[in-house]
Amino acid sequence: MNTSFFGELLQTISDRGRALLKRERAPSEKSESLIDLCDHLLSSRGEASSVARAADILSQYDKLTTGPRIAFFEALATRFGPDEERMKAAIAGWQQKPGDDTVSELHAASEPRRQELFRRLNLAPGGTRALVAMREQVMDALARRPDLAALDADFVHLFSSWFNRGFLVLRHIDWSTPAAILEKIIRYEAVHQIRDWDDLRRRIDPPDRRCFAFFHPALNDDPLIFVEVALEKEIPAAIAPILASGRQEFLPPGQARTAVFYSISNCQRGLAGVSFGNFLIKQVVEDLCRELPKLNTFVTLSPVTNFASWLKGELANDSSRAVNAADRAVFALLDQNLWWTDPVVFDQLKEPLLRAAAFYFLNARNRRGAPVDAVARFHLGNGARLERINWLGDTSERSIKQAYGVMVNYLYDLDHIERNHEAYAENREVVASSAVQRLLRPPLELVPVAG
Amino acid sequence: MNTSFFGELLQTISDRGRALLKRERAPSEKSESLIDLCDHLLSSRGEASSVARAADILSQYDKLTTGPRIAFFEALATRFGPDEERMKAAIAGWQQKPGDDTVSELHAASEPRRQELFRRLNLAPGGTRALVAMREQVMDALARRPDLAALDADFVHLFSSWFNRGFLVLRHIDWSTPAAILEKIIRYEAVHQIRDWDDLRRRIDPPDRRCFAFFHPALNDDPLIFVEVALEKEIPAAIAPILASGRQEFLPPGQARTAVFYSISNCQRGLAGVSFGNFLIKQVVEDLCRELPKLNTFVTLSPVTNFASWLKGELANDSSRAVNAADRAVFALLDQNLWWTDPVVFDQLKEPLLRAAAFYFLNARNRRGAPVDAVARFHLGNGARLERINWLGDTSERSIKQAYGVMVNYLYDLDHIERNHEAYAENREVVASSAVQRLLRPPLELVPVAG
Amino acid sequence: MNTSFFGELLQTISDRGRALLKRERAPSEKSESLIDLCDHLLSSRGEASSVARAADILSQYDKLTTGPRIAFFEALATRFGPDEERMKAAIAGWQQKPGDDTVSELHAASEPRRQELFRRLNLAPGGTRALVAMREQVMDALARRPDLAALDADFVHLFSSWFNRGFLVLRHIDWSTPAAILEKIIRYEAVHQIRDWDDLRRRIDPPDRRCFAFFHPALNDDPLIFVEVALEKEIPAAIAPILASGRQEFLPPGQARTAVFYSISNCQRGLAGVSFGNFLIKQVVEDLCRELPKLNTFVTLSPVTNFASWLKGELANDSSRAVNAADRAVFALLDQNLWWTDPVVFDQLKEPLLRAAAFYFLNARNRRGAPVDAVARFHLGNGARLERINWLGDTSERSIKQAYGVMVNYLYDLDHIERNHEAYAENREVVASSAVQRLLRPPLELVPVAG
Amino acid sequence: MNTSFFGELLQTISDRGRALLKRERAPSEKSESLIDLCDHLLSSRGEASSVARAADILSQYDKLTTGPRIAFFEALATRFGPDEERMKAAIAGWQQKPGDDTVSELHAASEPRRQELFRRLNLAPGGTRALVAMREQVMDALARRPDLAALDADFVHLFSSWFNRGFLVLRHIDWSTPAAILEKIIRYEAVHQIRDWDDLRRRIDPPDRRCFAFFHPALNDDPLIFVEVALEKEIPAAIAPILASGRQEFLPPGQARTAVFYSISNCQRGLAGVSFGNFLIKQVVEDLCRELPKLNTFVTLSPVTNFASWLKGELANDSSRAVNAADRAVFALLDQNLWWTDPVVFDQLKEPLLRAAAFYFLNARNRRGAPVDAVARFHLGNGARLERINWLGDTSERSIKQAYGVMVNYLYDLDHIERNHEAYAENREVVASSAVQRLLRPPLELVPVAG
Repeated sequence: MNTSFFGELLQTISDRGRALLKRERAPSEKSESLIDLCDHLLSSRGEASSVARAADILSQYDKLTTGPRIAFFEALATRFGPDEERMKAAIAGWQQKPGDDTVSELHAASEPRRQELFRRLNLAPGGTRALVAMREQVMDALARRPDLAALDADFVHLFSSWFNRGFLVLRHIDWSTPAAILEKIIRYEAVHQIRDWDDLRRRIDPPDRRCFAFFHPALNDDPLIFVEVALEKEIPAAIAPILASGRQEFLPPGQARTAVFYSISNCQRGLAGVSFGNFLIKQVVEDLCRELPKLNTFVTLSPVTNFASWLKGELANDSSRAVNAADRAVFALLDQNLWWTDPVVFDQLKEPLLRAAAFYFLNARNRRGAPVDAVARFHLGNGARLERINWLGDTSERSIKQAYGVMVNYLYDLDHIERNHEAYAENREVVASSAVQRLLRPPLELVPVAG
Repeated sequence: MNTSFFGELLQTISDRGRALLKRERAPSEKSESLIDLCDHLLSSRGEASSVARAADILSQYDKLTTGPRIAFFEALATRFGPDEERMKAAIAGWQQKPGDDTVSELHAASEPRRQELFRRLNLAPGGTRALVAMREQVMDALARRPDLAALDADFVHLFSSWFNRGFLVLRHIDWSTPAAILEKIIRYEAVHQIRDWDDLRRRIDPPDRRCFAFFHPALNDDPLIFVEVALEKEIPAAIAPILASGRQEFLPPGQARTAVFYSISNCQRGLAGVSFGNFLIKQVVEDLCRELPKLNTFVTLSPVTNFASWLKGELANDSSRAVNAADRAVFALLDQNLWWTDPVVFDQLKEPLLRAAAFYFLNARNRRGAPVDAVARFHLGNGARLERINWLGDTSERSIKQAYGVMVNYLYDLDHIERNHEAYAENREVVASSAVQRLLRPPLELVPVAG
Repeated sequence: MNTSFFGELLQTISDRGRALLKRERAPSEKSESLIDLCDHLLSSRGEASSVARAADILSQYDKLTTGPRIAFFEALATRFGPDEERMKAAIAGWQQKPGDDTVSELHAASEPRRQELFRRLNLAPGGTRALVAMREQVMDALARRPDLAALDADFVHLFSSWFNRGFLVLRHIDWSTPAAILEKIIRYEAVHQIRDWDDLRRRIDPPDRRCFAFFHPALNDDPLIFVEVALEKEIPAAIAPILASGRQEFLPPGQARTAVFYSISNCQRGLAGVSFGNFLIKQVVEDLCRELPKLNTFVTLSPVTNFASWLKGELANDSSRAVNAADRAVFALLDQNLWWTDPVVFDQLKEPLLRAAAFYFLNARNRRGAPVDAVARFHLGNGARLERINWLGDTSERSIKQAYGVMVNYLYDLDHIERNHEAYAENREVVASSAVQRLLRPPLELVPVAG
Repeated sequence: MNTSFFGELLQTISDRGRALLKRERAPSEKSESLIDLCDHLLSSRGEASSVARAADILSQYDKLTTGPRIAFFEALATRFGPDEERMKAAIAGWQQKPGDDTVSELHAASEPRRQELFRRLNLAPGGTRALVAMREQVMDALARRPDLAALDADFVHLFSSWFNRGFLVLRHIDWSTPAAILEKIIRYEAVHQIRDWDDLRRRIDPPDRRCFAFFHPALNDDPLIFVEVALEKEIPAAIAPILASGRQEFLPPGQARTAVFYSISNCQRGLAGVSFGNFLIKQVVEDLCRELPKLNTFVTLSPVTNFASWLKGELANDSSRAVNAADRAVFALLDQNLWWTDPVVFDQLKEPLLRAAAFYFLNARNRRGAPVDAVARFHLGNGARLERINWLGDTSERSIKQAYGVMVNYLYDLDHIERNHEAYAENREVVASSAVQRLLRPPLELVPVAG
């Protein structure tokens, strides 16, 4: 989103904004008076006028154009950090006499002053929402202004406390949900786009579909994250039947055995880094178990976000051990136009692609030693197991481009979640079904092996 | 509440509890395994099992008897403070290279580990409520165990963030409010006891009565603080007509000009130190203004919590300049049984008592230089003005004992709140009406003065 | 309630009221102008002003004192009946040419004009409630003024249509129900008095207690009828353990097998003759089955409303075959003070009393050939079975007086409801368990009789 | 909708259906068993099984195809009318002894038995909705089967009682309304079609738009009628600015002086003949007055439903006095393609068309002596005044075709509603503003008049 041009622009206008802030001749400059206001808000000892002052700051902030906004962030980063003199004194105090009081003073002294500023801004009506939006803009700037990282980290720290799972409310989303909320579900869906209200209705209204969202009271009608669920008999291998329009027959919920989480979308970019997904899935599993005691399988049907780019990288690298020579030859077929519509072609690709996908999940690692796939990191980190790799699970343009149409199922087995999670958290071990593991073996070996 | 006997008992059982914690032979001891669980919760890197573990800890905590509970608090205070080695390293790091990263590490290192522990405990269903209850028990212990002060301060710090005004919801309480909430209003009323459901109804159901409460979503049906309001024509001087049973005629709200806040009660002892009252009053003033645009006066009718004990102190001190000799002689009448029912007696007491009360509010100061009266500190700190001192405003046993029946009105004048607040916050100046100030003058002076 | 004195009073004031209505000199008399207003409302052809006019009539009616009110009823009964001339013409029309049109005209002509009047009065805000109240007052007058019976019947006819089960809403009543509704539950409970809010809470708050009520949208917060349910393991034989205060242990609902309907109260006297109880019980049975699939027994624990007076009648009648000589002698013990507290005494009474009760239920009949017991008529008419007669089921003063402490269980067995109902509806057959039938047999005969 | 072909088809299949009903050999035929079931339901004396039986009947009815359905209606019309013998006896009884009892019996005897049948069918869950749907189908058949008129009238009679205004609930419809309801608003809008959800949102979400609907509890989420309101400064003359997409500026509600009812749609065809619109408008006027006390003008912006066809009729009639010769010549321009887009053309048409429209409203009468225009009859009957005739108020295809683009405003002036209504109800007098009346005058007179 931030092109290099835009990045430089940011730098420039920030310089100018900063210049403006320093010049004393420009007392009317918005971001300067903003900073004064922030100083006042922080230094006031009572709450008598804090609410009004906080509202005033947020309203002025809202009118800033990009340049002054960056300058404001810069000021937050530099002028509202901790007070160095106080820190030095606190360190001396603690070293002299270690104890609760001196530790506490040191902790307080080393807290960036902007944290208290944000807590006070939160007093304003709509303050939480405004702060989440402010952080979005910090994130936008961050790509080009790494010096704002500490500011961003302070937001994450505060939001993690404010959006603690204990404060979240789970709500069932269906066709009797207010339109104002449904409209946001349409807008926020990030995995399988919701085209219009009819498409939405197909996902939330039929008896064999469910949708759940987390809300936070301070953002009232704005969901934080939501998941779409299909009730099925078996674990599905493809997304199209789930999203199909014109379904006439619905599975009576009592006959369902499998709950499929086929789409999970975060709604608030400004809350990136505060995780809800894990709690959402577990809460939904619990709620569905209570409503439909016969459900016994909880799986996702998930996209594979960068399998294609990874595979291209491996193919470009002649010494890659991810792909054997025979498979490498077959992959030339992927250049063929609409290869996934021609059975003669796609049948040849099936085994090599599944094998490569298995390698991608089980063996490929990023620099930090974790799986390459972000979605996999999320679910494996939650304690799920990689259950199945589905050939041509999604032939939408996007999925073909990202993953050659491959989709996967992650299985949430409540009895093993904890163990799987530990294995992943400690050793980055990818827990996978034997079916997935078997894909890795070269075809020839399949014959002699007994298992 | 904590008698000396009980205090020593606490000390003793805490010693024993501590002993148990140290002995390795007692692995089954509840509070020890609790501490192990806390260690696990803090050290786990994923969230997979945190919710369950947090619930487990809170449930075990709930079963502790006093001794092990104090031992548990002690462990929180000593073993879950900051890590000294890490602090030393962080200090060295910062001194070597001051910057965002090293400050941030120092701030993190100096944060008592129990803060993160509490944040994780809050993941459990009902976690917030349980932590508020836990802090109540810390407060109970604190009187005898000042070493727990840092632990208590950590609770206040977290709760201040979690119960930020931005997360509070104002609700109108009336006769169509669920009984489960009304029951708590009855229980929590701390100023003028609500005797039964009929008494409650008289305070919330008539058209000229209002009640508002702040709620926090994590405590759902449990109010944090509430205020009872009477709509009147004039500023009232006594509480009895407001609380009277059997009122037949109600003031049509449209004819009211004065909103009287006659009772404000905090509900959650565990949230002591986190202030809501100021926000509540201002929000209610705003809401009432919108509903009844003809209201033009917002006052309290407030108790005077320790006027009597203060006056006794002054009378016992022969050199006190708070009471002149003539008044001092009259005050002997206060020893007379039921003095407030005998006009011959109470007429003599009126002027001296009002004069002493004016001195009590305007001149008397505690060690920190603030007014002696806690209720006065609250309202003056909010920017209210001491408007009137009412003679025999409340002849209930409690009020006679605390305040010789004196009540006062604090006036919230939105145009002056800010200024009053500043005057109080900076100089502890008590803003009072001229009527109150005039009470101070000795009677003789009253004659020559024209005004 | 209507003593003879009051009855005559009614007659008198009605005469005077009527006089007033006739005199033309009293145009300001309330009930006369009322009747004019009613005439106007009935004759107006559009709806433009009907709502306001209806509201006006109801408000004037509300202010009538007893005399003019009776006069008003009289006018409704006489002047707002059908139009005789129109009827005669309609009869002639139909006789001449029978057909839809002439039938319809005859039906319309024979409808008392007050029915349309009531429909129009119902347009006013709160009209339904006002009409229900008006009918209550008609019922009060009816005892002494049988000429108002047709007026009363018209109310019942309209209310039966308006309060059709299709328009009723079932609501669960619990401790989170608004106090305004709970207050009415306390007031309306007619079987086992609810003493105060604590007593109420014991009946609706514990996990093994339920309460359900029917509401009609036009009466919003005012229940029509409600039932109190206890979840138990077995069919209970006495009421005291169900109503006991201080219960510490509650049956987990999942362990309950029996739902006991121990109190059913009609709330609106003005709706007497419109039956809801049958629908309420069946709806509650359905809802409980869905919530707690392990429930397999649905019974009442019911009072026996006039067993004692019936038995006294039989004992006074020397030729009664309801009581044999031996039992008759034992019944003298019933005159003993507090007989039910002395085991030596009550043990002797047990068998004779149970035998008499069985006779009372199985054989005794009122003039219309139906069981003597009103509660029995209700439940048997609904298709329940008389399951058990309980000795000393209720030793409250009222129950001892009404029924010598006897209580009974009626069993609702969904598989047999229809059949039981038919048997009762067609032949007044009392379906009873064999245990109840066996009670009838004299002890000696038990041996020789084959079955 | 019912073409002649379809009409005859109805006749035929009805004959066949009737045949089936009569043959005793076809006991399994649906509509026959239906009639048996209805007989049972009517004859059963208790309610024990009525709910289930009613549900059964409605479910079987639902499966009927057209033929058997018509046969079923026929049976309702013929076999469930009043009992002739009973009527004769009742007549004799009344003639012999006129009185409440005999009148009541005559009224009961002359009530078609199907009315009680419908009341009992209404016991079933969803019964009301099913009966409304049944009546829709009766209406469809009615066009070709006038013998079903009495059946239809019975529905109207019952529905008028059940859907009494006293039972209706007004709800504000906005963007926070559940989607399930909004979807119906889109579907039911009958005046200015709502194209999609964005179009809907433009009508209910902006601060200067309102929508209100009446609901009946038995049809829960299905509105009966709704009205769309625009808040404006002045009385609007055209619909396009109101419906425009892309409006950026909204009138702050506090600045509005005029509430414009620009669309009123009945939702339930099966309730035709039961009027709600009058009550809806008056209730909305009241509610808006309370919310926005500065509103002082309440008008509609209404279509003119058959002005064009009326005018064509007059033009075809050479002796019509509705159009003078000069105007008649100008009207030839109406045949020109897209005449309303060419200022040269439409300027010539303006005065003649407005004059003709004034004649249409003020002088033209249908056979019953009422105004030709159905919308006018509705609003005038409610007591509104014809305020203004708007030239080219709506240039949509439909409006050009129906009314040559003319729209009108009806003014609801609360002070004159009653009087206007009386004038209309008694004399069919069309109350119109002087501006409208002036339009009638021939153009020549316009010159000398000064005003």
